[in-house]
Amino acid sequence: MPYFRLPESSVRRYCDDLFVRYGFSAEESRFISDVLITADLYGIESHGIQRLIRYHDGIEDGSILPAAEFEILFETKLSAVMDANMCMGQVVSKAATELAIKKAKEHGFGAVAVRRSNHYGIAGYYAAMMAKQGLAGMCFTNTEAIAIPTFGRNAMLGTNPISFAMPAEPYMFIYDAATTVVPRGKLEVATKKGQPLPAGWAVDEKGLDCTDAGRVVNNIINRAGGGILPLGGSSTETGSHKGYGLGLLVEIATSVFAGGVTSNHVGHCGNGETSETFFAIDYGMFGDKRDIENRLSTLLAELRASAKAEGHDRIYTHGEKEAESKAEKLKNGIPANEKTISEMRMIAKTVGMDFDDYFNGSF
Amino acid sequence: MPYFRLPESSVRRYCDDLFVRYGFSAEESRFISDVLITADLYGIESHGIQRLIRYHDGIEDGSILPAAEFEILFETKLSAVMDANMCMGQVVSKAATELAIKKAKEHGFGAVAVRRSNHYGIAGYYAAMMAKQGLAGMCFTNTEAIAIPTFGRNAMLGTNPISFAMPAEPYMFIYDAATTVVPRGKLEVATKKGQPLPAGWAVDEKGLDCTDAGRVVNNIINRAGGGILPLGGSSTETGSHKGYGLGLLVEIATSVFAGGVTSNHVGHCGNGETSETFFAIDYGMFGDKRDIENRLSTLLAELRASAKAEGHDRIYTHGEKEAESKAEKLKNGIPANEKTISEMRMIAKTVGMDFDDYFNGSF
Repeated sequence: MPYFRLPESSVRRYCDDLFVRYGFSAEESRFISDVLITADLYGIESHGIQRLIRYHDGIEDGSILPAAEFEILFETKLSAVMDANMCMGQVVSKAATELAIKKAKEHGFGAVAVRRSNHYGIAGYYAAMMAKQGLAGMCFTNTEAIAIPTFGRNAMLGTNPISFAMPAEPYMFIYDAATTVVPRGKLEVATKKGQPLPAGWAVDEKGLDCTDAGRVVNNIINRAGGGILPLGGSSTETGSHKGYGLGLLVEIATSVFAGGVTSNHVGHCGNGETSETFFAIDYGMFGDKRDIENRLSTLLAELRASAKAEGHDRIYTHGEKEAESKAEKLKNGIPANEKTISEMRMIAKTVGMDFDDYFNGSF
Repeated sequence: MPYFRLPESSVRRYCDDLFVRYGFSAEESRFISDVLITADLYGIESHGIQRLIRYHDGIEDGSILPAAEFEILFETKLSAVMDANMCMGQVVSKAATELAIKKAKEHGFGAVAVRRSNHYGIAGYYAAMMAKQGLAGMCFTNTEAIAIPTFGRNAMLGTNPISFAMPAEPYMFIYDAATTVVPRGKLEVATKKGQPLPAGWAVDEKGLDCTDAGRVVNNIINRAGGGILPLGGSSTETGSHKGYGLGLLVEIATSVFAGGVTSNHVGHCGNGETSETFFAIDYGMFGDKRDIENRLSTLLAELRASAKAEGHDRIYTHGEKEAESKAEKLKNGIPANEKTISEMRMIAKTVGMDFDDYFNGSF
């Protein structure tokens, strides 16, 4: 499928206006746009504008309520539990992150768990918000069940990503990855491109290996069995039980702590039922912060400089590809395929915007 | 290699006496023994009595100092940093865990980071200590470098396990796993058994796949290159960068926070240079603790009851195999192979004990 490059500023203007049309405030809209566009700039296409259609459908079918107001249900000095009341995931997540930051700055540690929320974009965005405040930030979310437990055939856990960010030079350290071999978004991208899945990513309704992206996605949507494998694949010999367990840890940190619905009971596309948790740690609790940051930067530099495997010429540290991708895409535009562009055109029409006003009729 | 079953009570008496001979107090010795024997009871042979030879060698060569006293270097309401002063890992880890528990019970969260320590046994032991106090316990350690970063050829990170425990019915939930495909101990067991490694576990000095356990272990000991692959293997398609990143997170939580030496600079077998960190969270900070425990127990029961893949008849949750293994081994004895028994016999002789006094000349 052909790809085009959309200028970042045009995409931003389009998204800002779109979310205002849905009923979000200008400030909320800019924040939601930034989360989405940051994903595209980082090269995480699966969580960028290609996902606009899912947010659009969620707002249309009432599983995302733009007018809903989240509330704090329970609070201690170090923690809070929020009910998102099915609002937009990015909106409650911004507030939850800011509250975790405030608590960590005051007391050293802050933990805010959110229930009845919606897809919030890339987890790393919120971890990075905390890191920009000089904290170590961690953030987790559960999702609609898509991950198979080791030796199972039904999706029981979400892709349940782990994200962590912390200041480092010359790039912020940002780890952000599903506890499955791949996130759901990569299956969506494969489906849109009409490509088969690599072996070891997913299983069919009998729990057996399957490379047909469309079949796996359809099975998941129809709750017909099958799904994505945990990091480590299908065999304990390659560590399947480890990825499955890491997904469980994220489930505990999110739905179990937040009083939300576990992934195996979350409805289609999140459905106002996901849980997210935000942890901020002031690593000054372990001594001089500059010393700690310097130790991290040194380790990352040593990793990048260490000897490469035969056939490879580079070792990356997490956050580096994202920084390079962002610079490149700010210059050359955000890649979007025909299907995404046609969805954006349809969405604009539905809310009374003209797609060509934003992109000069170029696409 | 033939295996024998040693009665648990005899192994315990042997270990209790052995550690007293090394100069530990009776209480310290019982604790160290319990950490080791718990590993064997859980079926984690790599971290049980087969490792006595490494502790013995460490005490003999002065990298483990039984008489050393750890100290608190830095402390806040929620945290502490300790210098182990090269004492036995289990001894300082018990104190660090107890301090994290105390802080979490008082304030909701406790984090204790330790540097200049030694191998402390199974990480899950300390996480479980916290869970037994009604807390969510997490515990991490770095180790001598053995893990290859994605696209690298030199070991730069340790096996860097993640452990997490929390009360649940009918089994405590205990996750305890290296962020590498396998822990070092499994290579040691394969070497002792003379077995080849499965593909995808390790690479040689050029960064290429290697199934020769002895060669990989020798390369690591001689710092000749090569090592164990991160969870996710060698390709980003199977998530190598995820396991590598998780290892990095553990490195940050341990050496970077504790002011210790990063894995790539830790000497042979730990050498009094490892770092460990213990996090305790009172999940009462998120609401009613019984409700939270019940949600976890329900999720675990649903996972175990969910449909099995074709060819499988059981889905496990973490901590279940350990509970079953413990019951079986308390009844039938702890498996030990000839090499381990011969090492135990040699060690006894060195410290002036008679192996046959403990095992009635049966082995």
